[in-house]
Amino acid sequence: MFQTFEVTARPEQGPPRLARLRETMRAAGLDGFLVPRADAYQGEYVADHDARLAWLTGFTGSAGFCAALPDVAGVFVDGRYRTQVKSQVADVYTPVPWPDRGLADWLKEQLPDGGRVGFDPWLHTVAEVTRWTEALSGSEIEMVQSANLVDTIWEDQPEPPSNPVKAHPLEFAGQFAAEKCAALAGELRKAGHRAAVLTQPDSIMWLLNIRGSDIPRNPVAQGFAVLHDDGRVDLFMEPAKLAGVRDHLGAAVTVQAPDGFLDALAGLTGPVRLDKASAPQKLADVLGAAVAFGDDPCALPKARKNAAEIAGSAAAHLRDGAAVVELLCWLDAQPPGSVTETQVVTRLETCRRRDNALQDISFDTIAGTGPNGAIMHYRVSEDTDRRLQDGHLLVLDSGGQYLDGTTDITRTVAIGQVGPEERMAFTRVLQGMIAMSRLRWPRGLAGRDIEAVGRMPLWLAGQDFNHGLGHGVGAYLSVHEGPQRLSRLSTVPLEAGMILSNEPGYYREGAFGIRIENLLVAQEAPDLPGGDHDRAMLCWRTLTFVPIDRRLIETDLLSAAERGWLNAYHAEVREKIAPRLGKAANVWLDAATAPI
Amino acid sequence: MFQTFEVTARPEQGPPRLARLRETMRAAGLDGFLVPRADAYQGEYVADHDARLAWLTGFTGSAGFCAALPDVAGVFVDGRYRTQVKSQVADVYTPVPWPDRGLADWLKEQLPDGGRVGFDPWLHTVAEVTRWTEALSGSEIEMVQSANLVDTIWEDQPEPPSNPVKAHPLEFAGQFAAEKCAALAGELRKAGHRAAVLTQPDSIMWLLNIRGSDIPRNPVAQGFAVLHDDGRVDLFMEPAKLAGVRDHLGAAVTVQAPDGFLDALAGLTGPVRLDKASAPQKLADVLGAAVAFGDDPCALPKARKNAAEIAGSAAAHLRDGAAVVELLCWLDAQPPGSVTETQVVTRLETCRRRDNALQDISFDTIAGTGPNGAIMHYRVSEDTDRRLQDGHLLVLDSGGQYLDGTTDITRTVAIGQVGPEERMAFTRVLQGMIAMSRLRWPRGLAGRDIEAVGRMPLWLAGQDFNHGLGHGVGAYLSVHEGPQRLSRLSTVPLEAGMILSNEPGYYREGAFGIRIENLLVAQEAPDLPGGDHDRAMLCWRTLTFVPIDRRLIETDLLSAAERGWLNAYHAEVREKIAPRLGKAANVWLDAATAPI
Repeated sequence: MFQTFEVTARPEQGPPRLARLRETMRAAGLDGFLVPRADAYQGEYVADHDARLAWLTGFTGSAGFCAALPDVAGVFVDGRYRTQVKSQVADVYTPVPWPDRGLADWLKEQLPDGGRVGFDPWLHTVAEVTRWTEALSGSEIEMVQSANLVDTIWEDQPEPPSNPVKAHPLEFAGQFAAEKCAALAGELRKAGHRAAVLTQPDSIMWLLNIRGSDIPRNPVAQGFAVLHDDGRVDLFMEPAKLAGVRDHLGAAVTVQAPDGFLDALAGLTGPVRLDKASAPQKLADVLGAAVAFGDDPCALPKARKNAAEIAGSAAAHLRDGAAVVELLCWLDAQPPGSVTETQVVTRLETCRRRDNALQDISFDTIAGTGPNGAIMHYRVSEDTDRRLQDGHLLVLDSGGQYLDGTTDITRTVAIGQVGPEERMAFTRVLQGMIAMSRLRWPRGLAGRDIEAVGRMPLWLAGQDFNHGLGHGVGAYLSVHEGPQRLSRLSTVPLEAGMILSNEPGYYREGAFGIRIENLLVAQEAPDLPGGDHDRAMLCWRTLTFVPIDRRLIETDLLSAAERGWLNAYHAEVREKIAPRLGKAANVWLDAATAPI
Repeated sequence: MFQTFEVTARPEQGPPRLARLRETMRAAGLDGFLVPRADAYQGEYVADHDARLAWLTGFTGSAGFCAALPDVAGVFVDGRYRTQVKSQVADVYTPVPWPDRGLADWLKEQLPDGGRVGFDPWLHTVAEVTRWTEALSGSEIEMVQSANLVDTIWEDQPEPPSNPVKAHPLEFAGQFAAEKCAALAGELRKAGHRAAVLTQPDSIMWLLNIRGSDIPRNPVAQGFAVLHDDGRVDLFMEPAKLAGVRDHLGAAVTVQAPDGFLDALAGLTGPVRLDKASAPQKLADVLGAAVAFGDDPCALPKARKNAAEIAGSAAAHLRDGAAVVELLCWLDAQPPGSVTETQVVTRLETCRRRDNALQDISFDTIAGTGPNGAIMHYRVSEDTDRRLQDGHLLVLDSGGQYLDGTTDITRTVAIGQVGPEERMAFTRVLQGMIAMSRLRWPRGLAGRDIEAVGRMPLWLAGQDFNHGLGHGVGAYLSVHEGPQRLSRLSTVPLEAGMILSNEPGYYREGAFGIRIENLLVAQEAPDLPGGDHDRAMLCWRTLTFVPIDRRLIETDLLSAAERGWLNAYHAEVREKIAPRLGKAANVWLDAATAPI
């Protein structure tokens, strides 16, 4: 379904809904209630049924939460959403910069001693609840489990999704589900665990080589699973959804109705592994003494793409790259002032859908021009739509879901004649992006250890940006996939096969935004003559092939090595993408990839 | 006292000493005993009395430990000492790469179930003991407290040091001791702690504005202290050492004999703060339930140098830089093959001692030529002394202790005509050193977040080095001072006033070594035109001013910015150091600092 632009939540709906929530809180004897963006699966996208935060406050970002108290309602948002939140919520809501301000400190400041704040234990992870509990210890404020109060006042709340699940072909998965289950069962036995509870839908999809469509932009089906240490799997999912894949799942997978899940957990013999970082607190309570906290066993094997997944992703990127080039060619032919952001978004999706390989876009396209470009996770709506004007930049961040892979690409495009300030900043962002693309680094390092490389050119000019340099990406799965990240928050060692985005940016609130993003896959670096032969190193292979706007580059700022990288990249773009384009786009591509 | 070169421990002394230790272990009913390099104060240097590891094994590195078992004796050393240890210990000792191999895993592999390994609870920190205990949980191996078995067999063990303590003038300290005590007492009250136990001599020296000479190279006196939450201090130190500073210490400092320390701790009312990372396990045992683990309250204020300390360090560096330039000028006049490493060390110390400002060298000078340069913490001895030969490099790493500051500088010098491989590597090391020197970075980042900047040029050539990029440095205190470090092991945010070394290197075992080191002080970065005005950033001010060997630079590899930095640095060296030199050295300096 094409991306739409209607404004789903309006700020003026916030105050009456908050008033009703507060009544319910009072009736329940609570001095507060937490409304997170998250659902029980802790994914980035939620079904309409679970869009409680947007329904209550109007804020549609992909992370954050509201802490509704009797006299104040804080909307906690991270650096990506500081600008966006201001335009989405009414005055009754107070934006709180998070995680700079923690929930516990804020509650201590806002609530009198004895304050009791309710939360739905299905929507908050064990780690989150532990963190609050520790931060509130010694205070007189208490977090208490509660029914979900938003669900009690949301009269027309949509039903939970229930869409059919399909098999994911071996050609793209690269490994039989039974092999994956057997390997992970071995890991469980080694760790002395009898079973692992899987609560993340993309883990379950990956493990069983299936895909769903319960969630927009994300080919997953909602459900939970238990992987036993003998390789058997209990899958707790609406049986109707699985009608088409019973044979594919085979005898080792037992399908059970979701409402038997808690009883089944209660009957397990421990130790049962549960991932603190993603599992709902509710499950830890039910497992009780049987719980053994540990990482989701699917997380790392899923992150380390196998050869079939890497080949699939590379193929998807060429298909997707051709679609983006067609869009850029079209866009350059439009006079400044003649098209709007929504028109660009729809045209881009049309280009992507042309050959029917696209299953869905991988997230709502970000098309922000002028000051809208400074809103990092901007989603254009009828209210905010802007015309592309001469002298402005357009940040275009988009991606596709294909059977063979997931893409995510950002290009920043000049509309007409762009000024020197934007071009200088664009060049520095590009230098950071090139520096990361060219990097080799010793095995064992994590995103935190190398992220500075992609920021340094901005830092030297006194600039920086308030988001990570990059995130993991799935193989026809989530476009934001953990645990690998290029971020100072990530200490997970990078490994060969991990796909990550490399997306430095620069944002000047009220003025312009810049971001350049390629996807990269980590691989073992070949020995270099004169290099340390006993030192295992990794390097990147670039997956994304679309021209970078040469008109925005201050060529004099580039070193010879940076210029060499860019020219070689553009030559590869031409070689790989030209055969997939029509005549007009080929002419455009030739000019767009000419050496500088 | 001048650095000496006699070989204090000989490999052949190791086997009989180990045999005696094993007898003692057997008699004590132990299956193993740990002999650390550390003393009770966990400093880098130890008094002769505490040099148990060197006495037993011959290994003289500044970190590591021996785990002596009935059939094997592992000598655990880190990356700096992998080469050195091989030449220092006899065959009865097995070098173990540490921390890659942990003690617990090694013990599980080497000892049968039921094995009991003894350790002296004065010589191991709470953190260390906790780590073992956790790593051994579930195994049948037990760590047990014991008397120090080395002390029982070491017949001619030297006495503990007992040298006079002096007052450290306010001119250099920049703040009255009473003010420091009052400020830290306030921190303790805020944290709800009644007192803090100080076990690190440099913390005590800093807090009370005193300096000692119990330890070579390190102006500290051995002792312990308790800081109470009202600002009073109990100082447990031989009263004789303090005869000259009673008035300086004043009424708020009570001097007590060291043998009353444990009883005094036992009598304290909790919570009493103890730093897990540096305090002996023994103290935690004595404090029992009164203990509250937390950072040494002196650590951060000591690390953030005040204006007087920064000015003092800058002045010390000019004095010290002139001495190093005199040495380099002399060295260049010596024909290849005519001088030895020990002659360079002695001559350098003579240059430093010329104006009587030098209190001591700040560590034993590392002067390694040819393959000796690849031994990262090489200390030249009569046995290893090499002549400086044509085509070789000399790594010269040294520093001075002055009343106004502590210095630490490394230069790598060409002897005669040096080949392209060394010059390429030297240039990459220099590029990393320049990149870190030029860096600006957002406030809040730690060493781990920015260290890659100084390694990247080597990484791109498939090279790296096995030590941190830099360490903290004290103000007329330890040349290695925590908690600030430029290392992937450090997550302590860098702050204005912290002094750190910037010392990338490259080492090819059996062939050559390279290291270039300046000291830097972090400071608030000025706003830049076009920069983000609301983004607090830090940058470095360079303290070290000594030419970098231009003959080793492959000029073509440098970017314009790198060349610009080097030429500006050399101009500043000339301007600052020339007025302090004699005629011959001035001629040399002019050539050594000419633009490239």
